[in-house]
Amino acid sequence: MASPADSHAAPATPIAGPASRPIRVGIIGATGYVGGELIRLLAAHPAVELVGLTGRERRGDPVGNVHPHLATTELALESELDGDVDAVFLALPHGTAALRVPDLLARRITVIDQGPDFRLRDAADYPRWYGFEHPHPELLGRAVYGLPELHRPEHVAAAAARAAGTAALVGSPGCYPTAAVLALAPLARAGLIGDVVVDAKSGVSGAGREAKAEMLYAEVNESVRAYGVFNHRHTAEMEQELGLEGLDFLPHLIPMTRGILAAGHVRPTRPVTQAELDALYAGAYADEPFVTVVDAPPATGHVLGSNHARVFVRADERTGRILAIGVIDNLVKGAAGQGVQAFNLVFGLPETAGLDALPLAP
Amino acid sequence: MASPADSHAAPATPIAGPASRPIRVGIIGATGYVGGELIRLLAAHPAVELVGLTGRERRGDPVGNVHPHLATTELALESELDGDVDAVFLALPHGTAALRVPDLLARRITVIDQGPDFRLRDAADYPRWYGFEHPHPELLGRAVYGLPELHRPEHVAAAAARAAGTAALVGSPGCYPTAAVLALAPLARAGLIGDVVVDAKSGVSGAGREAKAEMLYAEVNESVRAYGVFNHRHTAEMEQELGLEGLDFLPHLIPMTRGILAAGHVRPTRPVTQAELDALYAGAYADEPFVTVVDAPPATGHVLGSNHARVFVRADERTGRILAIGVIDNLVKGAAGQGVQAFNLVFGLPETAGLDALPLAP
Amino acid sequence: MASPADSHAAPATPIAGPASRPIRVGIIGATGYVGGELIRLLAAHPAVELVGLTGRERRGDPVGNVHPHLATTELALESELDGDVDAVFLALPHGTAALRVPDLLARRITVIDQGPDFRLRDAADYPRWYGFEHPHPELLGRAVYGLPELHRPEHVAAAAARAAGTAALVGSPGCYPTAAVLALAPLARAGLIGDVVVDAKSGVSGAGREAKAEMLYAEVNESVRAYGVFNHRHTAEMEQELGLEGLDFLPHLIPMTRGILAAGHVRPTRPVTQAELDALYAGAYADEPFVTVVDAPPATGHVLGSNHARVFVRADERTGRILAIGVIDNLVKGAAGQGVQAFNLVFGLPETAGLDALPLAP
Amino acid sequence: MASPADSHAAPATPIAGPASRPIRVGIIGATGYVGGELIRLLAAHPAVELVGLTGRERRGDPVGNVHPHLATTELALESELDGDVDAVFLALPHGTAALRVPDLLARRITVIDQGPDFRLRDAADYPRWYGFEHPHPELLGRAVYGLPELHRPEHVAAAAARAAGTAALVGSPGCYPTAAVLALAPLARAGLIGDVVVDAKSGVSGAGREAKAEMLYAEVNESVRAYGVFNHRHTAEMEQELGLEGLDFLPHLIPMTRGILAAGHVRPTRPVTQAELDALYAGAYADEPFVTVVDAPPATGHVLGSNHARVFVRADERTGRILAIGVIDNLVKGAAGQGVQAFNLVFGLPETAGLDALPLAP
Repeated sequence: MASPADSHAAPATPIAGPASRPIRVGIIGATGYVGGELIRLLAAHPAVELVGLTGRERRGDPVGNVHPHLATTELALESELDGDVDAVFLALPHGTAALRVPDLLARRITVIDQGPDFRLRDAADYPRWYGFEHPHPELLGRAVYGLPELHRPEHVAAAAARAAGTAALVGSPGCYPTAAVLALAPLARAGLIGDVVVDAKSGVSGAGREAKAEMLYAEVNESVRAYGVFNHRHTAEMEQELGLEGLDFLPHLIPMTRGILAAGHVRPTRPVTQAELDALYAGAYADEPFVTVVDAPPATGHVLGSNHARVFVRADERTGRILAIGVIDNLVKGAAGQGVQAFNLVFGLPETAGLDALPLAP
Repeated sequence: MASPADSHAAPATPIAGPASRPIRVGIIGATGYVGGELIRLLAAHPAVELVGLTGRERRGDPVGNVHPHLATTELALESELDGDVDAVFLALPHGTAALRVPDLLARRITVIDQGPDFRLRDAADYPRWYGFEHPHPELLGRAVYGLPELHRPEHVAAAAARAAGTAALVGSPGCYPTAAVLALAPLARAGLIGDVVVDAKSGVSGAGREAKAEMLYAEVNESVRAYGVFNHRHTAEMEQELGLEGLDFLPHLIPMTRGILAAGHVRPTRPVTQAELDALYAGAYADEPFVTVVDAPPATGHVLGSNHARVFVRADERTGRILAIGVIDNLVKGAAGQGVQAFNLVFGLPETAGLDALPLAP
Repeated sequence: MASPADSHAAPATPIAGPASRPIRVGIIGATGYVGGELIRLLAAHPAVELVGLTGRERRGDPVGNVHPHLATTELALESELDGDVDAVFLALPHGTAALRVPDLLARRITVIDQGPDFRLRDAADYPRWYGFEHPHPELLGRAVYGLPELHRPEHVAAAAARAAGTAALVGSPGCYPTAAVLALAPLARAGLIGDVVVDAKSGVSGAGREAKAEMLYAEVNESVRAYGVFNHRHTAEMEQELGLEGLDFLPHLIPMTRGILAAGHVRPTRPVTQAELDALYAGAYADEPFVTVVDAPPATGHVLGSNHARVFVRADERTGRILAIGVIDNLVKGAAGQGVQAFNLVFGLPETAGLDALPLAP
Repeated sequence: MASPADSHAAPATPIAGPASRPIRVGIIGATGYVGGELIRLLAAHPAVELVGLTGRERRGDPVGNVHPHLATTELALESELDGDVDAVFLALPHGTAALRVPDLLARRITVIDQGPDFRLRDAADYPRWYGFEHPHPELLGRAVYGLPELHRPEHVAAAAARAAGTAALVGSPGCYPTAAVLALAPLARAGLIGDVVVDAKSGVSGAGREAKAEMLYAEVNESVRAYGVFNHRHTAEMEQELGLEGLDFLPHLIPMTRGILAAGHVRPTRPVTQAELDALYAGAYADEPFVTVVDAPPATGHVLGSNHARVFVRADERTGRILAIGVIDNLVKGAAGQGVQAFNLVFGLPETAGLDALPLAP
């Protein structure tokens, strides 16, 4: 609409890459679900030219062969990236991205890594939670944890450094941490979390596109189960971002494709009123373009297909507890959209560029 | 992306309403599923200002109360439309729109009716298929059947008339006819349809948002059934647009929210080769921005959330038959998106304005 | 199979009602989902004759009109129960059953109430959690809480009293409490629960068959949300059965029809080893025909359509916490099946009579 | 219930195998979905002892490891069948069963083959539709097509031969043919089918349990597509059983686990009234225990988990056409249940033995 529908939308000033030419972007690992979402978002991004999509054993294939919904884009897959790119999104298995990043950075290519290789600050967390020694621990301090709502200053600093010639490195957050941290960060920063249980529910697209019998429709449909009991890798990321130890995190797989709901059950360090919580969350998120604090328990269906998150918080007089819920689309705000949001910031673009689609419902 | 991702995208010329101001648009019946889709599409339309949304008993309510996914638009519902609008979309029960249209047209307000009241050319079809006498049969000839792929010249003529001061009236097609007619029209125009069965499968959002026990999740899930046996109202529309009589149309309700697949089983009037079909369909749709002819049976999931359609056609040497399949998102190309497409044409805008979102998958 | 497939199956001795004639059973409220399940189970029960099914405004209707899946039973609905019944199952809204029970008991008719009116021991809980004053608090002490795994002696005592001429009254447990209490009771009885969060996920059939817009397929599909935040009525029942106060219970609605998974996140009163938990749960459930302790996180799909429950418990060395999960089919072990199980006990029948169906998967 | 709930239920006479001992049954290929259903049904069959379950690379595994829903049966998998069995069910890939059957028959073991190797009468159909030369065409004439509703006399003859020492061989029908043939057979036998289109919709469990990316939940959910266009193998079987040539059969995959609906669109050889159709179908199915002719379009959810089929037929005055619909659970009446039904007949048992479960809904 002529006047922005979304009050948080980008300013009306022209959107463009450096020197008024499009930013040239490649995607390494374009054939999975996160890769497909990156194509969907970046193909429509006003400041981006998609110049290279790679995926194993798919050389020359039209994108539509792998992602039939994207057939009209008339893009094709390649075996190797064309050298002349400004930025690369990586959608690779953990441990793989870390091996490729030093060379990309050396070539002054900004990297948005959608995997976990640059999310954790403590190199010791990689063998502990992911089972591999990080090959480039010296880069962990340079990487920006790509959750702008908590780390916008680091993004801005990386943008300045990038403008001065140093490529940026973003470790884009995991899907569960995005939902849980957005829900709990205001409490954590206020020192209010005495004890917390994070019980999360996810659609199955987060498990990826590889053929696994346990992810067959007939296995997933009409059933719910917990998994990753006491050892899900995203636990480390949540503990890091919330400044907690010994977090009890339990994810569940539910019969839907997209969406994550994380419920944080908090025993606070002191009694808290609902009014205090309302003020705390309004202060945290009032100016955020993608986080909306809501008055009723939000559904994942309220953010489907969009980069929006909804956060809900309630104090219970009877038990003295706090409940904080966050919902996102795991493939957008929990993956590709969040990567684009960070990309926008490190390239000095409006944060919402290419991300202004409203959610799809029903 | 800086250069259009979609080869069918709008030209680079500026998009604007008459006299460079936004086109002021209202939606009457904004609280249902089609109403919600109209808001979602028009709130992001580059040439539109949404100035009025009405829905029964919802005066002053934020849109987010009714459509939680649209909470960030910060629009509100009204009981009556503000008078100063250029166009109105109607999403009303059949028989209701016809009563309101004359007054709107008299006020030079262009009308896009999402219901059936202005789809049929023969007034006698209304009592026969819909059970009511049309209150304004004199308007049926003036109305444009809003399927641009078959009726673009009428849209262009209506645009010219509108520019000269006569408001346009569009009867936006039904969801099933859109899928079936796009699949079968090239055969029909070529005189190739000897006999045809249209067997269609639809998600349940087409049944609307009213609380009905038979549409409860627990009733619809894990089950498929036919309905409207031999008397579905959309039959009339298909017969009209395909120039057929005695069409055998059977719709099915399947456990999904969005999407329609129409399979046309054709006994041709003469033997046809696949090469002939390929040429016929390429000729029909090569320049269409929203219709793509594909080589493998298309899935509704390939067009989810978008205004795209996919069409597939095959000749069978063994049986001498032809199969033609069309898939759409029933709420977009089958309803709100199609309405916006026609709206664009009658206002002289690029046909794809506000409709360039790629489909969402998985 | 000639030798019992299920090691917990009923003994080979003949199954029969008192005096070798079938037990005459009626169902009041036979048109909802719990009513349908009661018909499905009791129509095949070896010791039961279904003599009366009632439902509002359905007099004389074949059961198949209301429950098409039961069309082959050739039963019909009535407006009032025939007087000559030995037992009645009530599937009525809360507050309604309590008004009818005294008369039934006076007529020596055993009552299995599937609603909440006779689940709570403390009459004050009814106004607090359900919003009504209990009309017959004097019956609360007489009622048996129909979870045989925790209250088998009371069932046996009620059976003896019934044989001596006093009709039994069973308050059949709620769906969430059944899943949660089975998962947590061994810990509670061992005094191991220091603090507990019960986070539960349910299919939508528990919401019943009444037409509500929020339960439409299009609203529920592809979405998850919490509800009943801090005030779900089943909280009272869980606190009662686990002997806890201030329980944090949060239910979620997920896109499936049947099944409940309750995850109990426990901070124990003292350190506990997995070996200790294994022994504790084996001791609690080794002889139970319907509860199986499993080694991997159970899915609700593992018990679909059956009266079985699966329970899983794990200690976490890293955090010192315990996780206990229970899964059931909410309409069987969480409602109708559990009612039949209690019925069997109070009539002196094998506990598994009519309940020996294996779960249905996939 | 003491008096049979299902009017078609087995007679009250005792059910037993030859010489009053259980019939010893093995299942070869017990780890897939059809194998799981065979275990579920046969473990509860009153005349059967399950003595051997085999599956590749699963020796000694408890059944619960492969089929968690069957954990309470306490059966185990073996690498080879124990020799002493009376009957074997084969759930093997096509072309595999045919190689094993001669040896089994020679050992006087009755074979129920759930695959296609013994369904077709004309050996030439195997290379044409299945791509392999049948290794034992001499057995095709001996095999019974295991659809008792059309071939009960052959089953009875096989039972007599078996009693006289000749093992029976049953080719259990495919899922689509079962639904389509039950719907259309009365018309076919009456010579009423002039032209027919069979348009079918299936849940995905028919595709089996092998990990395939296209059967992932995220690929199947919220989407429908046709497949097997003009070349689905079940076409041969339908043509054989209906006595037709050049059948137009189109199957669709829809987002549900179980269930097939086949819609037969018929142009009759002469005008037919609804009354004539009603009489025709009543005559065909009035005495059938598993086929019910219904007055409203049936849903697959009406037969879920059961061996029941529902059939619906309508004549259209306007177009002169006939619509015939059949619905089944593809894993029960379309596979394992149908196999057990034929097994019952060839062993002289009541046809409904072990198959009396009512459908599960919602």
